[in-house]
Amino acid sequence: MLWTCFVSMAFAVEGMWEPSQLAGLGAPLRSAGYLEDPSRLVDVTGAPLGAVASLGGCTASFVSDLGLLVTNHHCVTGMLQRAQREGEDLLVSGFYAGNRADERPAGASTRVYVTQSLEDVTTKVIGSLPARLTDRQRTEAIDTNTKKLVAACEAPGGTRCRVAPFYEGSRFTLVRQVELRDVRVVMAPPEMVGNYGDEVDNWHWPRHTGDFSFIRAYVGRDGKPADFAPTNVPYTPKRHLLVSTRGVEPGEFVMLASYPGTTRRWRSALELERQATLTSPGQIEHLGWIFELLTSTLAADPGTLPTLAVPRLGLGNAVFKAKAMVDGFARGNVVERARKRDAALAAWVAAEPGRAAKYGPAIAALRETVTRRDATRRRDELMDYLGRSDLLSAARSLYRWSIERPLADVRREAGYQERDVARAQARFAEMQRSLHLDTDRRLVEHFLTLILALPVAEQPAELRAWVLSTSPAAENRPDALVAGALDRLYRSPLLATAAARLELFDRPRSALEGVADGFLSLAVALRPYDAAREEAQKEDEGAFSRLRPVFVDALRTFDPARSYPDANGTLRVTFGSVQGYKPRDAVSYAPQTTVAGIVEKAGPWPFAAPAPLLAAIDAGTWGPYADPALGTVPVDFLADLDITGGSSGSPTLDARGRLVGLAFDSNYEGIGSDWMYNAGLSRSVHVDIRYLLWYLDAVAQADGLLTEMGVSPAI
Amino acid sequence: MLWTCFVSMAFAVEGMWEPSQLAGLGAPLRSAGYLEDPSRLVDVTGAPLGAVASLGGCTASFVSDLGLLVTNHHCVTGMLQRAQREGEDLLVSGFYAGNRADERPAGASTRVYVTQSLEDVTTKVIGSLPARLTDRQRTEAIDTNTKKLVAACEAPGGTRCRVAPFYEGSRFTLVRQVELRDVRVVMAPPEMVGNYGDEVDNWHWPRHTGDFSFIRAYVGRDGKPADFAPTNVPYTPKRHLLVSTRGVEPGEFVMLASYPGTTRRWRSALELERQATLTSPGQIEHLGWIFELLTSTLAADPGTLPTLAVPRLGLGNAVFKAKAMVDGFARGNVVERARKRDAALAAWVAAEPGRAAKYGPAIAALRETVTRRDATRRRDELMDYLGRSDLLSAARSLYRWSIERPLADVRREAGYQERDVARAQARFAEMQRSLHLDTDRRLVEHFLTLILALPVAEQPAELRAWVLSTSPAAENRPDALVAGALDRLYRSPLLATAAARLELFDRPRSALEGVADGFLSLAVALRPYDAAREEAQKEDEGAFSRLRPVFVDALRTFDPARSYPDANGTLRVTFGSVQGYKPRDAVSYAPQTTVAGIVEKAGPWPFAAPAPLLAAIDAGTWGPYADPALGTVPVDFLADLDITGGSSGSPTLDARGRLVGLAFDSNYEGIGSDWMYNAGLSRSVHVDIRYLLWYLDAVAQADGLLTEMGVSPAI
Repeated sequence: MLWTCFVSMAFAVEGMWEPSQLAGLGAPLRSAGYLEDPSRLVDVTGAPLGAVASLGGCTASFVSDLGLLVTNHHCVTGMLQRAQREGEDLLVSGFYAGNRADERPAGASTRVYVTQSLEDVTTKVIGSLPARLTDRQRTEAIDTNTKKLVAACEAPGGTRCRVAPFYEGSRFTLVRQVELRDVRVVMAPPEMVGNYGDEVDNWHWPRHTGDFSFIRAYVGRDGKPADFAPTNVPYTPKRHLLVSTRGVEPGEFVMLASYPGTTRRWRSALELERQATLTSPGQIEHLGWIFELLTSTLAADPGTLPTLAVPRLGLGNAVFKAKAMVDGFARGNVVERARKRDAALAAWVAAEPGRAAKYGPAIAALRETVTRRDATRRRDELMDYLGRSDLLSAARSLYRWSIERPLADVRREAGYQERDVARAQARFAEMQRSLHLDTDRRLVEHFLTLILALPVAEQPAELRAWVLSTSPAAENRPDALVAGALDRLYRSPLLATAAARLELFDRPRSALEGVADGFLSLAVALRPYDAAREEAQKEDEGAFSRLRPVFVDALRTFDPARSYPDANGTLRVTFGSVQGYKPRDAVSYAPQTTVAGIVEKAGPWPFAAPAPLLAAIDAGTWGPYADPALGTVPVDFLADLDITGGSSGSPTLDARGRLVGLAFDSNYEGIGSDWMYNAGLSRSVHVDIRYLLWYLDAVAQADGLLTEMGVSPAI
Repeated sequence: MLWTCFVSMAFAVEGMWEPSQLAGLGAPLRSAGYLEDPSRLVDVTGAPLGAVASLGGCTASFVSDLGLLVTNHHCVTGMLQRAQREGEDLLVSGFYAGNRADERPAGASTRVYVTQSLEDVTTKVIGSLPARLTDRQRTEAIDTNTKKLVAACEAPGGTRCRVAPFYEGSRFTLVRQVELRDVRVVMAPPEMVGNYGDEVDNWHWPRHTGDFSFIRAYVGRDGKPADFAPTNVPYTPKRHLLVSTRGVEPGEFVMLASYPGTTRRWRSALELERQATLTSPGQIEHLGWIFELLTSTLAADPGTLPTLAVPRLGLGNAVFKAKAMVDGFARGNVVERARKRDAALAAWVAAEPGRAAKYGPAIAALRETVTRRDATRRRDELMDYLGRSDLLSAARSLYRWSIERPLADVRREAGYQERDVARAQARFAEMQRSLHLDTDRRLVEHFLTLILALPVAEQPAELRAWVLSTSPAAENRPDALVAGALDRLYRSPLLATAAARLELFDRPRSALEGVADGFLSLAVALRPYDAAREEAQKEDEGAFSRLRPVFVDALRTFDPARSYPDANGTLRVTFGSVQGYKPRDAVSYAPQTTVAGIVEKAGPWPFAAPAPLLAAIDAGTWGPYADPALGTVPVDFLADLDITGGSSGSPTLDARGRLVGLAFDSNYEGIGSDWMYNAGLSRSVHVDIRYLLWYLDAVAQADGLLTEMGVSPAI
């Protein structure tokens, strides 16, 4: 398998390629084993890319012409929470709608986006900016140009558009997507299949997680996107994937088509260092505290499970990722490597006067911009964590809507335009699913205490004044101040019901300022602080939009091998092969796990494999789904293709473009790759399509689903 | 390497062979790869077995004709503690005596035992027992016969003898050993070499521990064993091992000559089940509590390190082993397997009237004997943990000596005879090294509280009466009772100094009964309880000595493949080959680690690899010690030979009987093997001789040691 080694070492593994780049990658794609015409991958509406949709944070793919999509279980946990009825816990029990009438609405905020076109709009965004703009004005100008493009794009209706920056704002692309608003849950396995191993296994190979689920997109009878209605009909995608029952074997070519969210591989060493020493450690400390709060609350009262389980999953993942990032940065010597690269870049820049003039000042200014807000960093970080209170977040959002609504639509802040109304209302309603007053209160108590422990001069004056107003006599007793504030906030919190939040949504600013609710009064008091931070951020944004493209240009000229943009939520293709790795001295990881490993791990939660699954493994009826070499059903596999958050749920394709798996994770060693790719150790983790099919066939008896995907039930 | 597979699967891996069995194992030894004459292994004083010595709990081997012994670092931690001077911490710093004058006495209780002969004395022990003995009398008779044999054997002086039972008392062997009493510490690496990874890595492959140290045995100028004296001279062993610099490679034959301590492979399923559900869980709970006590004390006061570090290491190991045993029993379904075996045995016994008559009653009686003391089990267990108090232990021992001393030597309890006086005195003195009054007090408080929480009827009457005597008014207030007892015990504990303990050692019983010390008064009060338990134990022992040989005989007849006795502290040979394993689905362990893995793990304690070691690895000068296939120095390796506690420090020999490593651990999966061998997953862990030599050469610059072992320094 020399070709595999060649591919792994030399070229294709790192890189989240834009579809438009793929025609130029024909030779490496072919030598990696791709058997179809690479130039066909350029068409985002053709086969296979046209079958790949975004869920906004996850990826899914169409697997039938009746709008059926497959994605990860962990991408539908929120949908399950919204779909469940009183007394149900669909996350735990799983769900299967044997016919379409039983499919459950996934919630009004759920979306499926299908990309229709990509258009380079760089000149329209930054091509004609007036000379001598301040950085603040520059942000404003780019923002206005962007909003105009989006508004024109969305005018015909049924379409969601965004302008995506590439190479840190060197280039802009207008992405036009069909926005499907009626999404329903079709099938999810029980938690102890879809989330087998939970945080214990998360990020750690070997995995045995059946992280798959099915949803379906619906449209109105006229074929156009529509809100949920019983009379809607399944959406007919232009493309859907063919499902392989053969799977892939070690060394074999695999390709991923997905919507990866964010990478930072074009950032300077200084920024990477701050992530490693400030941002991630802050997340470990503060998100970790919230995670523990939810964990202990759940342990003390299992009745909170339907409310808190999903938020806890997300927090646990984020905390673990931050820890692994710090660890990975340290082990991989990542900061040091980036510093060396930047030092070499600086030497190269300085070596030639033309280069020094072209790049030198921008690189220096970039350093200054990165450190500009350090004096208020700690307090602003704590204010952001305080802002994670659901009730405070709702109050701020309601008040902001009341400020933006009277403005002309194009002048409104992004996120507060007419196009955002429906989703905002849906979120105000759905907040109820995860709102838990006691944890919300303890979160506010914790972060308020930390903020009031700062020197008074560092505390946000607006916050301090509001807190003092709740207990004027307690000025020098922080405990009493916190108690007074909590009493004011939680004595009778108006925003604790969905009805109240929705009812307040349309109210004018003056009306909200008159409401007697504690959170609304706090949101009003904090508005000057919020506005000042926004202004500062927009100023920084303007500076970054000037400086980062220069840094990127220097890096690309210095090192022409760097040839793909950061992930930015747009459709990308990555490719590689099924590959294990050696995580450390004397340890080897095979690239495939098997159902035998599920039995090995089985025990108390999070390894409480369901009895029907264990019985089916024990029965050993594999049907056509066994791997010939392993003699049993493979569960998950590793590939050396490039991946990040947002790729979750995306289809893993074989050399013919057939569906052979679903990406759902990266390995521990690959976590730092969001900032700097860790060649040789970064791996993506995929559910093997054969486990998915075998589970549907032998355990879930979901014959209808199999048939719809063109697979004949065989067990 | 088909032969390796054959060996692994078919024969040689399980089994701790008596030297006398090895002539009969010629064929499997040869096909496993042994190149010398197997019949020569029968001679325990010939080469190579004559070079292998016992440290009483560990094994060591002579590697020069000047009494130099190599063993594990973890076998000399107590010696280091006793050898260190005020202000030193030899466990942490390591130690190297560049010349013999600098070698440090390892403490008066340290012993090296060299086996001289083994003699079957079965008839003398149980061949002429009178008919119609009670079980209690049977124990007495066996005890008396044993003592007579030992006394006669030791009469010439300089020799230590014991009678070792084989096959649960079916056979008895008189072991005659030279007892060397002047032992000195020659070389120990720093803790962060010898104990690299501590409890984090303990039992877990891959290991990177340099678990080796050197000691030297001395004798008087007349060549006879002697107490420490500056004028003593190095002992000249009859044999010493040749040191290999070539090492071994994966698949290669290896053999271990060692003094394994205890296995229980001939026990019934009922006993195994009680270990899994009662004994080990009790250790996890109670030893775990003591371990946490020492850990938190050390953390709060690093000044206690020289006192508590060594006891803590031993406790941590025991707790972890108990946890792993429970886990291993569960994962390996061990109790279930043993139950099935016993059920099959019972069916086989019942199937034939002659067999039923021969074995049936004994097997039934064995079950009864095993469960006979269940009513007092919990209280006696707690009393044993209470007895772990150093001061209570010293008091009980002193009082017992005063009771036994007036008796004729042969009538005294084993351990309280004239032959035991010197070692007992040494222990009373050395106790000071690890005595810590505050932890001793907290231990007594904890277990006393647990005992007084039992229903009054279950509490030992002697203990309760003594406690009530300390605070008569507090009868119904357990807290006050505990406080009163603690006050009495620790207000001015006489036994807290070595001088006082030694001074009291020779006192008659009546004198001790008059001493005003709390612990002595408690020991006196508890004597009836202790005596009653001893009587009960001796009664059980007599029953087991009747019944277990019948059970063993039944098992051996039922399954003739079971062909070696349990470990019992006598010299054994085990053999196998260098082999990795697959611990779980998708994970493979290579059988060798390398110095690169030390660097990979390096970080805070317990991975604080010393700077000189890291520098030497970075320099990459391997000399003749590199493994040709690995291109670097191997650190530890795995073999599939059979091992248990007591094998620590024993020499790993290659096909020519040369020293290629030191056994120091077994793997996690092998822990349950003390009760039932786990074929396929049990592995022994060895330091590679090349790491030891490279470390001496490149890091410690211990040229004198290398030269003494016949190795030319090359770096």
